[in-house]
Amino acid sequence: MMKINDLSRRNFLNLVGVAGGSTAIYQTSLAMGVMSETGKPAKLDLKQVKGEKKSVLVLGAGISGLSVAYELERVGYQVTVLEASKRIGGRNLTLRHGDEIDELGQKQICEFDDDPKMYFNAGPARIPGHHRRVLQYCKMLKVPLQIKTNFSRPAYTHEADHFGGEPIRVSRYIADARGFLSELLHKAVDKNIFDESLSPEEIEKLRDFVKNYGDLKADGTYQGTIRGGIKSGGMVIPSASHEPIELRALLDSNFWRSGLVSSENPDWGDPLMEISGGMDGIVKAFVEAIRSEIVTNAQVQSIRNTTEGVAVEYHHGGKRKQLKADWCFNSIPSHFMPSIPNNFADDYIAGLSAMSRGNFFKLGFQMKSRFWEDEGIYGGITRTSQRINQIWYPSADIHSEKGVVLGAYAFHGQSGFFEKMTPAERLNFAADCGEVVHPGYRDQIEAGVSVPWGRMNHMMGCGVIWSDEVRAKYWDRLRLPEGRHYMMGDQISYHSSWQEGALASAEFAMQDMDQRVRAADAATTEAK
Amino acid sequence: MMKINDLSRRNFLNLVGVAGGSTAIYQTSLAMGVMSETGKPAKLDLKQVKGEKKSVLVLGAGISGLSVAYELERVGYQVTVLEASKRIGGRNLTLRHGDEIDELGQKQICEFDDDPKMYFNAGPARIPGHHRRVLQYCKMLKVPLQIKTNFSRPAYTHEADHFGGEPIRVSRYIADARGFLSELLHKAVDKNIFDESLSPEEIEKLRDFVKNYGDLKADGTYQGTIRGGIKSGGMVIPSASHEPIELRALLDSNFWRSGLVSSENPDWGDPLMEISGGMDGIVKAFVEAIRSEIVTNAQVQSIRNTTEGVAVEYHHGGKRKQLKADWCFNSIPSHFMPSIPNNFADDYIAGLSAMSRGNFFKLGFQMKSRFWEDEGIYGGITRTSQRINQIWYPSADIHSEKGVVLGAYAFHGQSGFFEKMTPAERLNFAADCGEVVHPGYRDQIEAGVSVPWGRMNHMMGCGVIWSDEVRAKYWDRLRLPEGRHYMMGDQISYHSSWQEGALASAEFAMQDMDQRVRAADAATTEAK
Repeated sequence: MMKINDLSRRNFLNLVGVAGGSTAIYQTSLAMGVMSETGKPAKLDLKQVKGEKKSVLVLGAGISGLSVAYELERVGYQVTVLEASKRIGGRNLTLRHGDEIDELGQKQICEFDDDPKMYFNAGPARIPGHHRRVLQYCKMLKVPLQIKTNFSRPAYTHEADHFGGEPIRVSRYIADARGFLSELLHKAVDKNIFDESLSPEEIEKLRDFVKNYGDLKADGTYQGTIRGGIKSGGMVIPSASHEPIELRALLDSNFWRSGLVSSENPDWGDPLMEISGGMDGIVKAFVEAIRSEIVTNAQVQSIRNTTEGVAVEYHHGGKRKQLKADWCFNSIPSHFMPSIPNNFADDYIAGLSAMSRGNFFKLGFQMKSRFWEDEGIYGGITRTSQRINQIWYPSADIHSEKGVVLGAYAFHGQSGFFEKMTPAERLNFAADCGEVVHPGYRDQIEAGVSVPWGRMNHMMGCGVIWSDEVRAKYWDRLRLPEGRHYMMGDQISYHSSWQEGALASAEFAMQDMDQRVRAADAATTEAK
Repeated sequence: MMKINDLSRRNFLNLVGVAGGSTAIYQTSLAMGVMSETGKPAKLDLKQVKGEKKSVLVLGAGISGLSVAYELERVGYQVTVLEASKRIGGRNLTLRHGDEIDELGQKQICEFDDDPKMYFNAGPARIPGHHRRVLQYCKMLKVPLQIKTNFSRPAYTHEADHFGGEPIRVSRYIADARGFLSELLHKAVDKNIFDESLSPEEIEKLRDFVKNYGDLKADGTYQGTIRGGIKSGGMVIPSASHEPIELRALLDSNFWRSGLVSSENPDWGDPLMEISGGMDGIVKAFVEAIRSEIVTNAQVQSIRNTTEGVAVEYHHGGKRKQLKADWCFNSIPSHFMPSIPNNFADDYIAGLSAMSRGNFFKLGFQMKSRFWEDEGIYGGITRTSQRINQIWYPSADIHSEKGVVLGAYAFHGQSGFFEKMTPAERLNFAADCGEVVHPGYRDQIEAGVSVPWGRMNHMMGCGVIWSDEVRAKYWDRLRLPEGRHYMMGDQISYHSSWQEGALASAEFAMQDMDQRVRAADAATTEAK
């Protein structure tokens, strides 16, 4: 609601600067930038390069690297981006007809129809409304967005060992869980156990509250509710609701451990968005906007801070080449860094080595019909106790002929199971799991692709999982520069595995550099 | 999950028919049609007219009337639709540049920009996934659908007398309500009040359940959660959550009475859909598909059952005209019926008179910028204790220049407040209310329209509110035909005010007629 006025922010920062010097400005502006939950996102306010051209080397053409190239060339830096892979975008990967999946040792070609609607987001796939930077870039670069169904009441929760192995509509589980919790609370209220803290009128309100919350009967019992889904009728005959699932069965099941609350997380909370036509729309828009050179197939061989800047050696076109620059922004996955020759301090490299890398495994199926829509499901997620974990249904192109479904999404420790398989084995396994939830599923499959991020060339992993110990020991060391070299990317954030973390990290690094440039310029001016 | 096989349904119905006659077929097929929560919607299976042409009169060109014309002309009936208004669509009304709002005595012209993106759904605006008939027609008629944000965690709940009059993010209210309910329950578990019904292991699971549900600390207390929204940080500095709202303040507020649980209703549960470009897309598609004549400005003057069928008099082009038909399907609002001369039984007219009609009031503003997106809101509903009740933000055309916001939505008893005002007064009042939630709101307004359904010509009301008494006394009388005359529309359903109710009612009436036709044909054949 509050709109932070750009002008007054600037004035405020000047006042802070007078009182506390540039470090104070730096800390405050960062804090303001990231604290803008309600207002427009703060605009990057980088000082224009004047006089002698300053150069920047960006390592990695993922989202963070592309944003650095875009921002710094606009204020006069000469930017070069080196990308190890043949592809621009990093873990932002949308697969379509003919695309090659660059997995170590086992190549796949995506055999989806040659149709722009048939795509699979193997990396990021969702944008929440609080990811202000991603959204701001989409707006500036005119990347089209659409609402994406994530939480879906008509989708299923399936647990092989519960509810007779039958998939249950999510709405039904939620309604019964709320109903029974409310009934228990109503019972507790009747026993007056809260008298110590609540007044009689408040107790009465609490009784009404839980009746509303759980859709209880007048006597405070839960006997099922239409909120769980209409079992029958509702239009020309009276509606009937499902029999409640027993509280005992709910407690014994596992959906409440994560699925029931997952959409409460701001990153997965309604409404979510996606880029129309595929998440790589933002990559394409950056590439179109960027004038700087982006060199693909350029594998970094060494990084060294020098007295004047940073020197980077890389392989390209069969030759070893060198580039020097005033600044270096590096999004190379941390676990590759210790093996790239450098002259960084030992504790800096120790920090990079200490970061633990997560893995994800995603698998997509092109389905010959949108059978889920016949079940009343218009996008969103079914969860299953099987190793595929989730099935995602597309929510765009409703009622069109075909659709691409996410057929497996394994996290971290679970990904190894799929990594060991051949691509064909993965598809086969996921087809079997899908069949349990949707009889006839296998027959719907026309083509499939699998992306085990732990085995993808130039990646060999996904976001970083920062343990509390590693965070305490190394975070401050790694978020701050080593000489004129900045580590960045989602790995250097509190929001790893998200594009917003990557952009925030890049922004942080650019602001830090900018403050150093301003301080140096001020010192030069004073010296004159 | 289960797919009801069309063939086996047919076989089953034949078996039922052998055992119980056509009434049994009729009851069973209806039940199966409306019970298809999971399968494809049952297809209408109407007998093709052979030999002599049979005629049908449809009164009212709303959704139910259009569907009857569409279905019956396909199986050989000669259909004529009479519509009192100059406009086709009934309460399905999308307003755009230049449209006239046909209110009794005070005309408005919609002054939105001449831009297809600038429209306002003044009638139905949402389609849930369980409205199988609406969705099936959209699919058949190739009406494009998109996901519509309805429930929105970043939107606000505003109560003038609570929380210091400040709008609170919905996510925050929800998280705190769940947190405190869970804390109370955790406390109750500790007091062992459930021992009688739950085993010690189950008690332990319940403790974990509520800890997950409310995001409680290890000791079972609720101390706020990031689920309520990120107050600050989260990307390059650690995230902080909001201070919890006191349980006392939550109980004292009113959001829990309806807003907190509204999206649990299957009609408002995620995901919802809307027709791309405006809800009247389905009206246009019907009109394009229908070959029968639709006579607008045709006001019915009398309806009479005759020995051969039904005779209807109507005014058109300054003349009184008459049409006769074998069957009549009538969606004229029930409250107009007693004043239209007829020869219906007294109790039939008594039933129509007894139905109580609801009202809605909707108001739309064209806004010069999409300021809500700057607040992280990408569609959905803000609720306020002010008389406007709700503000709806559009979720299509994200990041485009302008947008149309629903600026007021008053129900039934509350609509009279707005009905008494001039259109200008309504806009002014709603602007003031919006200003309380979004400072600067008034300055964003470029144009506005208001639709008080209780004062709209040829409508004078919205859906029917069936009391239990009226339902018990008259439902069976009114859902069944009076001679060859069927009342229909959403008013003759358990789902009034929804297009699905209108379509289900029309389907029900057509199936009833079809069974009578089949029975008569069978009798004729036997007699030969």
